[in-house]
Amino acid sequence: MTDQPKRPFGVADKARLVAKTAQNPPAVILVEPQLGENIGTTARAMMNTGLEDLRLVDPKQDWLSEKALAAASGADRILERAVKYNRVADAVADLHTVYASTARRREMVKPLMSARAAAADMHARGGLKLGILFGRERDGLTNDEIALANTIVEVPLNPEHSSMNLAQAVLIVGYEWFQAAYEGPQEMVTLNRAVPASKDVLIGLFEHLERELVICGFLRNEEKIPSMIVNIRNMLQRADLTEQEVRTLHGMVTELRYGRRDDRPKRQPGVKSNAGEPD
Amino acid sequence: MTDQPKRPFGVADKARLVAKTAQNPPAVILVEPQLGENIGTTARAMMNTGLEDLRLVDPKQDWLSEKALAAASGADRILERAVKYNRVADAVADLHTVYASTARRREMVKPLMSARAAAADMHARGGLKLGILFGRERDGLTNDEIALANTIVEVPLNPEHSSMNLAQAVLIVGYEWFQAAYEGPQEMVTLNRAVPASKDVLIGLFEHLERELVICGFLRNEEKIPSMIVNIRNMLQRADLTEQEVRTLHGMVTELRYGRRDDRPKRQPGVKSNAGEPD
Repeated sequence: MTDQPKRPFGVADKARLVAKTAQNPPAVILVEPQLGENIGTTARAMMNTGLEDLRLVDPKQDWLSEKALAAASGADRILERAVKYNRVADAVADLHTVYASTARRREMVKPLMSARAAAADMHARGGLKLGILFGRERDGLTNDEIALANTIVEVPLNPEHSSMNLAQAVLIVGYEWFQAAYEGPQEMVTLNRAVPASKDVLIGLFEHLERELVICGFLRNEEKIPSMIVNIRNMLQRADLTEQEVRTLHGMVTELRYGRRDDRPKRQPGVKSNAGEPD
Repeated sequence: MTDQPKRPFGVADKARLVAKTAQNPPAVILVEPQLGENIGTTARAMMNTGLEDLRLVDPKQDWLSEKALAAASGADRILERAVKYNRVADAVADLHTVYASTARRREMVKPLMSARAAAADMHARGGLKLGILFGRERDGLTNDEIALANTIVEVPLNPEHSSMNLAQAVLIVGYEWFQAAYEGPQEMVTLNRAVPASKDVLIGLFEHLERELVICGFLRNEEKIPSMIVNIRNMLQRADLTEQEVRTLHGMVTELRYGRRDDRPKRQPGVKSNAGEPD
């Protein structure tokens, strides 16, 4: 087991990812966050999802306190570069499009998007400077603050229990942004594996197994043998075996049949002596 | 500003949502969680995303402590109904399909899906009992534990900083499950198959096979046995075996080992006399 390639990207994918997300990751704007710890966990969520620009409007605690840095868990850089503003209007002054993350529905005439739709919208605005407003832990954003945003963003959650921690809201919105930036893995169901064995190798295994199943008496009912064989082959086929795994199975069959017995043949045809042991 | 309709669903949507998600939300299985607080925040993330069945394998702290309940922030019900198990094998015994959430890439021959692809996969398996394994805060899951899963799930994140808190991993995987439930009918990927065997049935086969492989001498190199077992389990796991197929394999192992021999035991424990012959 090795730990390198940590993520499902190759080098080329990663280069593409960097190029795409460096374009214009949205700024995260926390409005009057109450706890340094929440600013720290927000920074961590931003780092996880490729966001970098943290803006703090009148924060109530120090975002470089020991507690905040501990909560950031390695995302110190984001905290160190965070900029403090006195008013929301100042924090969004240089931005072209602003989204407001809200947990409660407002009576406002304003576009409303799910986090996923908002992520697609952000990517459609390539080249513009974007930002997302997140409100106070307890009270969210005021209507005045929301009025500065172009679009309201909601995270669709269980309607019976939709209250989320600040950093978790940032994580979900950032996660959606990152998924939209990284188009690769979404549709992919990558098989984490080597090349499957070619069919001749597989058929060699089928024949070896079936021969031994006849000899030992498992396959004895002449009438049922053909359908049994189809069933057994289908099962093994489905496992998408690699060559090494086919060797392992050869070895298992041989050893189950002849291991530590007097009638063990000198050598099974086509099977290496120590078949099945990993290299 | 009013607070009612909290979420972007109408009544009809909500009814549909409830009907759909109640079908089979996956169980969340935490393996040796270290901190009661993390179990609490996990419960909150589950509540947010419509998951209900929390299973704890050998938790290191009380999940009903004051700290855990405070962290759950209203998701007490999930903590109160959580069930404790001693081993992962027991926690997954009644499930048909198990996903393993991992942060590090493993060299294992097993399907790998993004959280989003896994959510679609879960919904395609309507009616089956599903579960997702989450590992220890510090070390994740062992290879033995992952070998009990059908599929590895990874959350695509910034490759430079992909470490997430336990509850955040649960939140993202649950969020994707909930989005797939909420978006309405998915493109169904119908697998041409019967119901796969539940994990206890499969584990019974693993144990029978491994016992015989030790007796016959195939598994003889003490040092290699653990990794050989992981490889063998992964191969068989991948085949998505039905109960009938598991019976067939029990029969094959028994007959290969003892068929037409003097030392054949009267009966193999747990295996019917004519095991493996189709009805």
